[in-house]
Amino acid sequence: MKLLLDAGSGGRASMRLINDIFVKHFDNDILAKMDDAALLHMSSPIAMSTDSYTVSPLFFPGGDIGTLAVHGTVNDVAMLGARPKYLSCAFILEEGLELEVLEKIVISMSSALSEAGVKIVTGDTKVVPKGACDQIFINTTGIGEIIPPTCSLGSPSGHNAKEGDVILLSGSMGDHGLTVMAARDNLSFVSDIASDSASLNHMIERLMLEVGDIHVLRDPTRGGVATTLNEIAEQSCVRCTLFEDRLPVKENVRAGASLLGLDPLYLANEGKLLCIVPKDKMQQALEIMRADEKGKDAVCIGEVSALPSSKTDNQSGNNTGHEKTGQVVLVTLMGGKRLLNMLEGAPLPRIC
Amino acid sequence: MKLLLDAGSGGRASMRLINDIFVKHFDNDILAKMDDAALLHMSSPIAMSTDSYTVSPLFFPGGDIGTLAVHGTVNDVAMLGARPKYLSCAFILEEGLELEVLEKIVISMSSALSEAGVKIVTGDTKVVPKGACDQIFINTTGIGEIIPPTCSLGSPSGHNAKEGDVILLSGSMGDHGLTVMAARDNLSFVSDIASDSASLNHMIERLMLEVGDIHVLRDPTRGGVATTLNEIAEQSCVRCTLFEDRLPVKENVRAGASLLGLDPLYLANEGKLLCIVPKDKMQQALEIMRADEKGKDAVCIGEVSALPSSKTDNQSGNNTGHEKTGQVVLVTLMGGKRLLNMLEGAPLPRIC
Repeated sequence: MKLLLDAGSGGRASMRLINDIFVKHFDNDILAKMDDAALLHMSSPIAMSTDSYTVSPLFFPGGDIGTLAVHGTVNDVAMLGARPKYLSCAFILEEGLELEVLEKIVISMSSALSEAGVKIVTGDTKVVPKGACDQIFINTTGIGEIIPPTCSLGSPSGHNAKEGDVILLSGSMGDHGLTVMAARDNLSFVSDIASDSASLNHMIERLMLEVGDIHVLRDPTRGGVATTLNEIAEQSCVRCTLFEDRLPVKENVRAGASLLGLDPLYLANEGKLLCIVPKDKMQQALEIMRADEKGKDAVCIGEVSALPSSKTDNQSGNNTGHEKTGQVVLVTLMGGKRLLNMLEGAPLPRIC
Repeated sequence: MKLLLDAGSGGRASMRLINDIFVKHFDNDILAKMDDAALLHMSSPIAMSTDSYTVSPLFFPGGDIGTLAVHGTVNDVAMLGARPKYLSCAFILEEGLELEVLEKIVISMSSALSEAGVKIVTGDTKVVPKGACDQIFINTTGIGEIIPPTCSLGSPSGHNAKEGDVILLSGSMGDHGLTVMAARDNLSFVSDIASDSASLNHMIERLMLEVGDIHVLRDPTRGGVATTLNEIAEQSCVRCTLFEDRLPVKENVRAGASLLGLDPLYLANEGKLLCIVPKDKMQQALEIMRADEKGKDAVCIGEVSALPSSKTDNQSGNNTGHEKTGQVVLVTLMGGKRLLNMLEGAPLPRIC
């Protein structure tokens, strides 16, 4: 059955769609109240994050737009050292969409929600005429309770990387990005890969409660590990040094990316985290990450040091806000050093 | 200058777009931190609501997609008897969009934010290839602090309408819906009208604090006053009776709607609220609403009574959840009675 335009008109047809698909599968008491807003009990302070998902194709090995919309936002909330609790969910649907496709996505969202232990408590549905959007876009916005940080710097933040810290990565790079590109373009030479899309909130909760002193948590999504580390380096005014021989990349991802001329350091991940901690916390953090199936390949990929003096001068001087005040350096297999910049100019749309 | 696809890739081009347009105009300390999530201090309980905005055209008399995205979500949060504080904001942008158009929208959002006294604290930007969306879609998700209700029923809810209550409407019906339709189709016979799009949170705060005992607050957006009252009647299992001679409709809206064969009772409003209170609170509530420029035409449009017994039997009997358990009756100018149903079947897409 195809979605009709009047399902977005706010009347009886909207109610049917909401009841028959959304309320049915996202079933919970708060959502069922169906007021303009949800009433939630939370302990302050809270973390809030939003993402719209426009991935194409809708389904890919390892997930779909629905699981991505849960994992991505759950992870963003958790990266602040928070326990994600509630999501809002807003659909923009194209007239003519097969309702079976929508329901399949909503069902997979529902199991991703259960696994993460979060609830969708409020929502919105818009239906736009055929051609005004491509099938389905989903926005999720998440809120969570900040886990009281034991670190003197406060909750994890991109601003908190310090000289002497180590950079941990919870597993292999580029799985999601390459999988979506391969699925979209039917690249048959890229085989046996799947998105890493997963919720990392349980792992993060253990890191916060058992290791403590977590300086930075970030998920290297669009732009990949290299771009995310550049953001952190700039925010913290430090140099991040990565060692190429430690970078985890699956063999088929390495091969596929190489054929396409892509660098896994710049490919999106949806179930990985970068964790920056003081060196003396490294072992404990790695053990906790590795104890989780989603972090079993966690490794230390690099370290944080002070910027060379010319860079720090730059920062205290005429910093316009667009000036680079951090740097990421890759020590190559051959022992050379290469500056890694942010992703620049590569249009990889609709990867998430 | 046109928006390029790489502004959505998460790299340097995304950063430029975010800094030059979003951070610049939404400027505040929390957003400026640019972590994966925003850290917020709130007192519990909180209200949360989400809406995606897909209105076409982007600009219309009385507002644009940006002001709508602020007003609509601020109002939904406030309708739970809450003080809206923070919004997330996620843009889906079409490749090739004029950056001047985007900036103009962001600037008008910024002044709508100031007026409402809320902040955008976290955001997301996706750029999709030309043709994959129509220019610009915006999602805003809002959270606010519940104002402790003085009412024994708790915070205002669609479930709280009681026999003997009166139904107040803060002003004229249909201004937004007709304005957008006229702007979209260049209807020259509809002149001198403008959207009522506005934030109602300050009015609601006064109603909560000074009148108290507010049973229901709802903004009659998509589907209009008739549909929203049907939702309330069903949730509260009551009959709502409206008096046609009291319904406020501007003369040109009435004329324009009539020419188009539309009923203002079913047209969308974006700066109006329905407020249901015990009869003895009516005068005080109307005075507070009328003291606000946005509520100066507030009137009592009807009353709440018990359902006829066959309807209540129905509810306690085999109610499948799709059964009608409330009703809305219009007493016409001629003194006749007419059942008002929810909007059914009329496809009025992209009105908000």
